[in-house]
Amino acid sequence: MIDTRQRGAHILDAAVRLIAADGLAGLSIRTVAAEAGVSLAQVQYYFGTKDALIEAAFDHAGAEFLSRLEPVLAGPSSPHRLRELIMLWLPLDQDRERRVKVWLAFAGAAASRPALAESSRRTDRELLRWFEDELAGLGVTDPAVQSAHLLALIDGLALRCLVLTPRARSALIKQVLDSHLEGLGAG
Amino acid sequence: MIDTRQRGAHILDAAVRLIAADGLAGLSIRTVAAEAGVSLAQVQYYFGTKDALIEAAFDHAGAEFLSRLEPVLAGPSSPHRLRELIMLWLPLDQDRERRVKVWLAFAGAAASRPALAESSRRTDRELLRWFEDELAGLGVTDPAVQSAHLLALIDGLALRCLVLTPRARSALIKQVLDSHLEGLGAG
Repeated sequence: MIDTRQRGAHILDAAVRLIAADGLAGLSIRTVAAEAGVSLAQVQYYFGTKDALIEAAFDHAGAEFLSRLEPVLAGPSSPHRLRELIMLWLPLDQDRERRVKVWLAFAGAAASRPALAESSRRTDRELLRWFEDELAGLGVTDPAVQSAHLLALIDGLALRCLVLTPRARSALIKQVLDSHLEGLGAG
Repeated sequence: MIDTRQRGAHILDAAVRLIAADGLAGLSIRTVAAEAGVSLAQVQYYFGTKDALIEAAFDHAGAEFLSRLEPVLAGPSSPHRLRELIMLWLPLDQDRERRVKVWLAFAGAAASRPALAESSRRTDRELLRWFEDELAGLGVTDPAVQSAHLLALIDGLALRCLVLTPRARSALIKQVLDSHLEGLGAG
């Protein structure tokens, strides 16, 4: 018996690898089939159109990222845990850099694809709420505003880091993020 | 006599329009030639490869953006001017939304193209220095750190706004940016 779910996941892993390497520029049903080592017809059978494949790859990458958050979230709430979670977003090693590139490709795609935009808004609402609760728990004033500020700051830092050397990335994060968290009383 | 510079600019305008519509996904020498109404050979004559075309389109879009900054920069330094300049980056109308989409596509491309990354770092260094001077002039404490913070925050807000409704964009900017500028003593 063929495990169809696993076959689908294998195709999505291939799509995410291609997106991490060069965004959505070279992505097609054909290139994903070649990368996954399956036939064109199989990719079409699982995902139909290229747009549906992109959406499924987005959800797949999101679920993979959430699975990285879980072990950190298992610990007790603290300024240290907050910082550790934020660090999961920032491109400070190859694995996280790959994730940021995938996220950036999706952010670009979401800007012109309503279904992706809706999925992106849903994720953002969850993250906003989560950060708001965490900041409130740490006694930060105005946690709703500070949560929105922090998420925008993380996105901007992640994006800016991509064109910097590893050393300059750490310096930027230390300079901007650490001083911001300290100012919030969550550093 | 053919004005070669103008012909080149016409091709770059076409490339930027395509990038604004759907990122780099559908961009090729062929699609740019079709959009510009010129032959494939002409695009190749002016720009050679697709990568060189992308780089030239990046510089072209950057120069166009700087020309928008100039009239605002002609005024005297003030918290009002600073806010007005920041607003030029944020997708609060169709024209600025188009610019943010182009910038986002380039940010994605720069992550895997060294020549674009270098050009992006150069622009960032100039912007950092400009914001640092402006913030120092407004009496903001720690202007170097605050300049890096502000640039990352603007990038993150611009990116997050893209998937929001016009109303939610204004609300997010008011909530996060205006309170941040006030906190800096530059609101």
